[in-house]
Amino acid sequence: MTDNHQVRLAARPEGLPTPEVWEHTTEPVPEPAEGRFVVRVSHLSLDPAMRGWMNAGRSYVPPVGIGEVMRALGAGEVVASRHPDFPQGAHVTGIFGVQEYAESDGTGVLVVDPSVVPLSTYLAVLGMTGMTAYFGLFDVGALREGETVVVSGAAGAVGSVVGQLAKIKGCRVVGIAGGPEKCAWIVDELGFDAAIDYRAENVGTALRTHAPNGIDVYFDNVGGDILDAALARLRRGARVVICGAISTYNATGRPAGPSNYMSLLVNRARMEGFVVFDYADRYAEAAAELGGWLRDGKLRSREDVVRGGVADFPDTLLRLFRGENTGKLILQIG
Amino acid sequence: MTDNHQVRLAARPEGLPTPEVWEHTTEPVPEPAEGRFVVRVSHLSLDPAMRGWMNAGRSYVPPVGIGEVMRALGAGEVVASRHPDFPQGAHVTGIFGVQEYAESDGTGVLVVDPSVVPLSTYLAVLGMTGMTAYFGLFDVGALREGETVVVSGAAGAVGSVVGQLAKIKGCRVVGIAGGPEKCAWIVDELGFDAAIDYRAENVGTALRTHAPNGIDVYFDNVGGDILDAALARLRRGARVVICGAISTYNATGRPAGPSNYMSLLVNRARMEGFVVFDYADRYAEAAAELGGWLRDGKLRSREDVVRGGVADFPDTLLRLFRGENTGKLILQIG
Repeated sequence: MTDNHQVRLAARPEGLPTPEVWEHTTEPVPEPAEGRFVVRVSHLSLDPAMRGWMNAGRSYVPPVGIGEVMRALGAGEVVASRHPDFPQGAHVTGIFGVQEYAESDGTGVLVVDPSVVPLSTYLAVLGMTGMTAYFGLFDVGALREGETVVVSGAAGAVGSVVGQLAKIKGCRVVGIAGGPEKCAWIVDELGFDAAIDYRAENVGTALRTHAPNGIDVYFDNVGGDILDAALARLRRGARVVICGAISTYNATGRPAGPSNYMSLLVNRARMEGFVVFDYADRYAEAAAELGGWLRDGKLRSREDVVRGGVADFPDTLLRLFRGENTGKLILQIG
Repeated sequence: MTDNHQVRLAARPEGLPTPEVWEHTTEPVPEPAEGRFVVRVSHLSLDPAMRGWMNAGRSYVPPVGIGEVMRALGAGEVVASRHPDFPQGAHVTGIFGVQEYAESDGTGVLVVDPSVVPLSTYLAVLGMTGMTAYFGLFDVGALREGETVVVSGAAGAVGSVVGQLAKIKGCRVVGIAGGPEKCAWIVDELGFDAAIDYRAENVGTALRTHAPNGIDVYFDNVGGDILDAALARLRRGARVVICGAISTYNATGRPAGPSNYMSLLVNRARMEGFVVFDYADRYAEAAAELGGWLRDGKLRSREDVVRGGVADFPDTLLRLFRGENTGKLILQIG
């Protein structure tokens, strides 16, 4: 029997999570009780939302408790089971936490087939990432064919899918990303119509160039000045989809709000937030459609895979906040 | 033949409009051309939105040009006419500007009956003010019976109607206003469930007390810190109606945005702006319903009438920004 290495939240971070906020623990691998099973986690999903889960206070999910294994989506293989729906050898995804082995009763766990797409893709385009892009763009954003879509964090996990979905729907798509490599990737490889490098360009000026008639749907993953620049360029009846605000997650003071929000009035526009978990009863619909586009080559899933142990989780997480990932950041264990 | 005194915009204001931004002119009263008529303006509507019309730049209506008569809604009597639909003696409302006599071709002009309600009421509950409250609350806010509604600028023209409409629909209504007289008025006279005096109380704390289960619809007329406090108290699925932001209209720097906007994500809420002019084809529907409630005593129209000449317009306008009016501020001419 091997050990189960884990990463637990030891303290609530102020700003970027430093090594002190984590505790590395080792436990025996659990034996499954009746109706439960044990998963050996092979892939961990790294998500900007994790930073929010580490904060105290009311949110859309309870905070991770001090001393608890850090919450994380993951994928792996069932290695011991007393649950008929999740037999030994099955491959699964679920909220397994930052640990090598997780016990589960099957709540929120999906069986997946790694012969169709790699296991990592079930954490990317065919996982919460893809669901977030799909429901955010189509339901919250109420996208219509031919519209102009702008997405921030465009080379990130969700943003890169959002832009591709909008292209599939015949939209003009402008992505905002950091650095020339990411900008080249979203245009050359993913087919975006234009990219704005927010590190090198004035985003407001560039939006005027690349979305000359204004923005119909702005899908925001970053918040801050980029959100403000996009608000200033809304078209009448625009929808602003609030998916995330990674630029503010590690702010230690009160982050500035979008001072151009009155553009919502001038343009009869709306700004709306959502949480992908609310769409659980429609995941199958989205997975089927996303899977079809993936199979037909209309949609690409890029996973930025870091190999290591669970102990590498804290450092890997920081890559998100430094903007070092392209596509979906995944930690592959072992 | 008398003179036509006018107030024109002489310069774009920085901050509060000072006397220097206005020009007082006198012209002969016009003679109506064929298909046109002349109105003697008896009542001018004073609206926070006027401040926005004075700024240069893209908005939902073109800015008032330098040297032009200041744009204003008004009511009056037709004194000369070559238009069959607007005969001499008819009472009308329309965008007549800050002047004693206005010539019109009838565009956007409505004939009203001052024997039903006073002429001033056609600028208040039965005018754009009432329409703004009606469409903002019912259409943009998508109000449902029994919800908790919070309105800022609650003793103002629009806010005082919003709260009453929400009470008619069986909602819990909390108004935010400045000073004990206004707070007493909205509770004792208009039937709001609670009032928060933002000058004397911490709005966030008071919202926790008066909207303990959170806010379903927040109707915002003020922006600034009060908007932020309301965002922090949204309930799941809440709607934030952006009607105005009077606290920011005279800001000389870039006003702060609502830093709590991520509450929209946590609470799957939306924030949406609107412009009442978009609902022109449904004004009759709203007027009929508002008129019925007015007649049945379920809705009160309070007009805060200042008597003077058009030359008093600049000073009267400032009363809005000092929060001195209760109900609809109107300048009655002569």
